[in-house]
Amino acid sequence: MSGLARFSLNQQTVRQWSLPELAAGCAAAGVRHVGLWRGPVQEYGVAAAGRLMRAHGLGVSSLCRGGFLTSPEPAARAAALADNRAAVEEAAELGTAVLVLVAGGLPPGSRDLAAARERIAEALAELAPYAAGHGVRLAVEPLHPMYASDRCVVSTLRQALDLVERFPADRVGVVVDSYHLWWDDTVAGQLARAGEGGRIAALQLADWVTPLPEGVLLGRGQLGDGCVDLRWFFEQAGAAGYAGPVEAEIFSERLWTRDGAEVLAETLERYLRYVLGSHGVATDL
Amino acid sequence: MSGLARFSLNQQTVRQWSLPELAAGCAAAGVRHVGLWRGPVQEYGVAAAGRLMRAHGLGVSSLCRGGFLTSPEPAARAAALADNRAAVEEAAELGTAVLVLVAGGLPPGSRDLAAARERIAEALAELAPYAAGHGVRLAVEPLHPMYASDRCVVSTLRQALDLVERFPADRVGVVVDSYHLWWDDTVAGQLARAGEGGRIAALQLADWVTPLPEGVLLGRGQLGDGCVDLRWFFEQAGAAGYAGPVEAEIFSERLWTRDGAEVLAETLERYLRYVLGSHGVATDL
Repeated sequence: MSGLARFSLNQQTVRQWSLPELAAGCAAAGVRHVGLWRGPVQEYGVAAAGRLMRAHGLGVSSLCRGGFLTSPEPAARAAALADNRAAVEEAAELGTAVLVLVAGGLPPGSRDLAAARERIAEALAELAPYAAGHGVRLAVEPLHPMYASDRCVVSTLRQALDLVERFPADRVGVVVDSYHLWWDDTVAGQLARAGEGGRIAALQLADWVTPLPEGVLLGRGQLGDGCVDLRWFFEQAGAAGYAGPVEAEIFSERLWTRDGAEVLAETLERYLRYVLGSHGVATDL
Repeated sequence: MSGLARFSLNQQTVRQWSLPELAAGCAAAGVRHVGLWRGPVQEYGVAAAGRLMRAHGLGVSSLCRGGFLTSPEPAARAAALADNRAAVEEAAELGTAVLVLVAGGLPPGSRDLAAARERIAEALAELAPYAAGHGVRLAVEPLHPMYASDRCVVSTLRQALDLVERFPADRVGVVVDSYHLWWDDTVAGQLARAGEGGRIAALQLADWVTPLPEGVLLGRGQLGDGCVDLRWFFEQAGAAGYAGPVEAEIFSERLWTRDGAEVLAETLERYLRYVLGSHGVATDL
């Protein structure tokens, strides 16, 4: 299928697939990139997972995820930094240049968002040189404000850029994910800022649908099912100079109950229609 | 109990109480203000509800809620405007000067947030003179971005101010609610802006706790149970010149299963400790 040169399937979209199923399924569908997660990769073996993807002609667009860098407790902090260094090594071994970071929420009992954000900056200062030494770029992902307390105190693209611009652009960038940013009317200007600074390390797409499920983690919408102007995100990122892979990353219990190949076929059809805007007609973008 | 001069109990915090129970319970506890909702007020009778509150020495700090002004369909739009005019009349009859507006989400099938926000401005232009004629001020409430699609496309205090500053300050203001705004690191500056312009029409407080329940409506935290720096909101609003009632508005299924008087007593104790910061010692703020 043409039009898929930049499409990447984040493996959480088809969580029901094992890594070999993912590799074979993507190759069969003409997909050229995948986004991987540390858990299943570690289980399969990092080196073996890297070989498996290469054997199927698949590039790894990103590894999810490091981060959780907001604890002020020395032991927890040391453990988090060690875990992030391990994530860097895994990314390098897989052959991806992008390690996605979910920065972390408020420590238990804390109400101090500013202090938590500052601890992330301190951690990036420690981790960025290590990652650069492995050919890996850290990619800070702003998460929707509904995750600010328990998952990520970096809630807007502006906040993420304020943070990463303290570091060289080739070492620390941002992840642009439509699910987290769609509601924000400052995002166009911030995408332009990110592009000018060469900060867009990854582009991820999911749609926004309601009602949100309990815990608000697993209710993302298939591309086109919700209210996000996905083509706008794709085009704005492109206008800002981003020409890399475009990951469909849809955490959805509804998708996970279905056949993986069917979900992938649907996702590709939706990508062509709602992201590339070719209304089902294949194009060579 | 001293320290309660500005405290207001929004009736949704004790949804288990009828209006007479609310009036009697608040009067017995030394509460001087209540925030009311249209549904129970209409059911009881608007004029009778106003008399009931006055008979118990209670001022009505706000009426919730008008709004839902984003439909582009002429019939739906006319119905929404008519409903908002009725809400204005109810507010006037109750004797409150503040009508809270929840602006409305995206119309079905729409992905155009900017257009939806513009329709709110058009509706305010129609409604504000009518409200002013009744001695009622419209108060636009920015809601947390997790409600942007289905409830309110105005997600930040900055957006709300951009909207209301098109109109005279005595006719259109904003509601500051800690639950919706706590995550936003631009809120301090926007509170100052709101204060300078005399735009703060109401201050509402609830805490943020996780996990969020399905639908994300009824999981607000009792004051002090979550991660919001409530005293900071109270003090910043005060520094910005707001000296009006402070509503505890906690939609929580956990609170609604308990005895109303017990919930009110707990809320008052939490207000003194976490909002006024008097750590349980009564003060005369």
